[in-house]
Amino acid sequence: MGLLSACKEQPAQTQSAAMQRFIMNDSENEFYTRFWYQPVAGLGYEEGVNRRDASSIIKVDTKYYVWYTRNTDTQSSWLNADLWYATSVDGLTWTEQGPAVERGGEGAWDAYSVFTCNILVAEGKYYLVYQAKAFNKQRNVVGMAKADSPDGPWEKLPEPILETTADGKYRHENTTGDSQWLDYLEVGSWDSGAVHDPGVIKRGGKYLLYYKAHQIGSKMHADSKIGVAVSDKPEGPYVKHHLNPVMNSGHEVWVWPYKSGIAAIVDWAGPEKGTIQYSEDGINFEVMTTLEDIPPAGGAYIADKFDDPEVGQGFTWGLCHYGRSQWNFLLRFDCDLQLGGEKKLDWSTFPHYSTVRDVMADPERFGLPERKQ
Amino acid sequence: MGLLSACKEQPAQTQSAAMQRFIMNDSENEFYTRFWYQPVAGLGYEEGVNRRDASSIIKVDTKYYVWYTRNTDTQSSWLNADLWYATSVDGLTWTEQGPAVERGGEGAWDAYSVFTCNILVAEGKYYLVYQAKAFNKQRNVVGMAKADSPDGPWEKLPEPILETTADGKYRHENTTGDSQWLDYLEVGSWDSGAVHDPGVIKRGGKYLLYYKAHQIGSKMHADSKIGVAVSDKPEGPYVKHHLNPVMNSGHEVWVWPYKSGIAAIVDWAGPEKGTIQYSEDGINFEVMTTLEDIPPAGGAYIADKFDDPEVGQGFTWGLCHYGRSQWNFLLRFDCDLQLGGEKKLDWSTFPHYSTVRDVMADPERFGLPERKQ
Repeated sequence: MGLLSACKEQPAQTQSAAMQRFIMNDSENEFYTRFWYQPVAGLGYEEGVNRRDASSIIKVDTKYYVWYTRNTDTQSSWLNADLWYATSVDGLTWTEQGPAVERGGEGAWDAYSVFTCNILVAEGKYYLVYQAKAFNKQRNVVGMAKADSPDGPWEKLPEPILETTADGKYRHENTTGDSQWLDYLEVGSWDSGAVHDPGVIKRGGKYLLYYKAHQIGSKMHADSKIGVAVSDKPEGPYVKHHLNPVMNSGHEVWVWPYKSGIAAIVDWAGPEKGTIQYSEDGINFEVMTTLEDIPPAGGAYIADKFDDPEVGQGFTWGLCHYGRSQWNFLLRFDCDLQLGGEKKLDWSTFPHYSTVRDVMADPERFGLPERKQ
Repeated sequence: MGLLSACKEQPAQTQSAAMQRFIMNDSENEFYTRFWYQPVAGLGYEEGVNRRDASSIIKVDTKYYVWYTRNTDTQSSWLNADLWYATSVDGLTWTEQGPAVERGGEGAWDAYSVFTCNILVAEGKYYLVYQAKAFNKQRNVVGMAKADSPDGPWEKLPEPILETTADGKYRHENTTGDSQWLDYLEVGSWDSGAVHDPGVIKRGGKYLLYYKAHQIGSKMHADSKIGVAVSDKPEGPYVKHHLNPVMNSGHEVWVWPYKSGIAAIVDWAGPEKGTIQYSEDGINFEVMTTLEDIPPAGGAYIADKFDDPEVGQGFTWGLCHYGRSQWNFLLRFDCDLQLGGEKKLDWSTFPHYSTVRDVMADPERFGLPERKQ
């Protein structure tokens, strides 16, 4: 017990350190959930087509809408990509409708790829926010397009709505691709290297644009963090909050109105990976639970996401991707993140959950091709 | 920001809550690692045979030894099981040698199953500790067998070395199987319902038997915790520590000597799931890092595990299982948990890591059968 305890009288320890910090079991935690998975028709595996990074899902009249990154590139599943969309009446069978927002023309700041989009519904209009990349530029930006209908047509705003902080210095700023990531002269601010995965939520009357960022020279993808930029209007201007980053971990933005505040899933990157966090003010987040098997790059159907509700209600399902080399397709997840809803936690039901890990154990069900001989 | 901030002058906040509690990036954390996986010959998938729960691996002369749960039951991969062992000269190609410890005869406290074993080397002898289950009894016990050689023959100690705390009350104590788990009259102590996954380590001259336990009436498997029982001698008697549980989470025991203390991997269960923890005294553990994709029921080759070293050195590889319904086989993992060793963290190498999730994406490589038509 160390030197101090040998010198001083100390009260007897009555709990281990682990039990002193223990608050509750997962089974008693309103934020805890398991996830389970099933295939979807229309957006599942298709040879030669990559579909990734589902947006939040919205319902317009009787149809669900989802947007996602789509390409047919054999080298990368997110570069040389466009934003496509699909609709469904039951959330299981989807009809791919075609492109929503496509890459810009030669020389444009979105000429190389538009990807990792999310949807915002505000003031009777629809907004897509997305990551955009130019050819011959290390740093990327966030763009926005708007439409009067979820079916488009989409009009791009002429300028990016968010950029990397313009400090730090790559050795070669004007190159394409990630190969120069570690070749830098100065690291700069926490979001100097890249701004990714934008997602907007309305809360307290403000539009909060959450985004993932990397610092120039980050030793690996996993050192990403999450920041927020705030605007009074859906189209911006978005001003980065002075307390950024507001999450010290996370590789995708996944936020929703919950109770009177904002909840967030923090996925596989960083010291607080694998958690759900909650914040009353959208700035100061606390860890509420730990999770396993978080849907990769999930987008949920959050019915009240854009209503700025007094009491956010959470969600129970969405789409995510299984993204690995030749396997980039969307699948459906279900969970118990609805406010006050019943949790399917009974240990005896546990063997019946299928995890992302199990997707590949049942290739037939997920429509995957014959394995290579 | 709440009532208080409206009433009192407060200093301006300079960091978000997340950054106030931020200590370091994963890439800077000596406890952080990724895991990657490859098939092994001899202990991989075999139709009709379940192999699970690899012990720690030891090296005797030129050969590695591992023990594991093995059965050919079609209903359960851990009941009606025996403990088998295998040897290897390179850690990749294994030769299954046959049973080490088998179930006891009719009426014995280990008649139904012996499973989830671990190895201890002490005082020139070999000890297997394992979970044992009788027919017609809800509560299980931990047994021990000893041998002069890792090849046996193994002599069982006549009595269990650890039992559930004898309080709490199932409605039906004398039944077989898990079906009565939630049918109880009193919950009792934290380890009233079951004692699982024993593993012994020598530290500070004492033998520390770590074990996972459930309370009667636990709402799900995930509410397990870890305790320790201490003995001066390898065979016991083992006395449960009064500060148990010492970990508030975890579904497998995985401890090793690290620096001057003990490190532990805490896997998928509980509020501190997915972490590595460290303790100077073996009792008070602190979270040192979070991890993803922890090897399921892993057993590592920890060269100094039983040496009570002044400075524990960690490990870089072991065996674990892919355990899902019809798929119960062992595979090899590698990692960077050696003291002072280089970490393979460079983001550019990340796409080359294969995760447990990917095992099923490459069935050919893992020797899995043709998928069902």
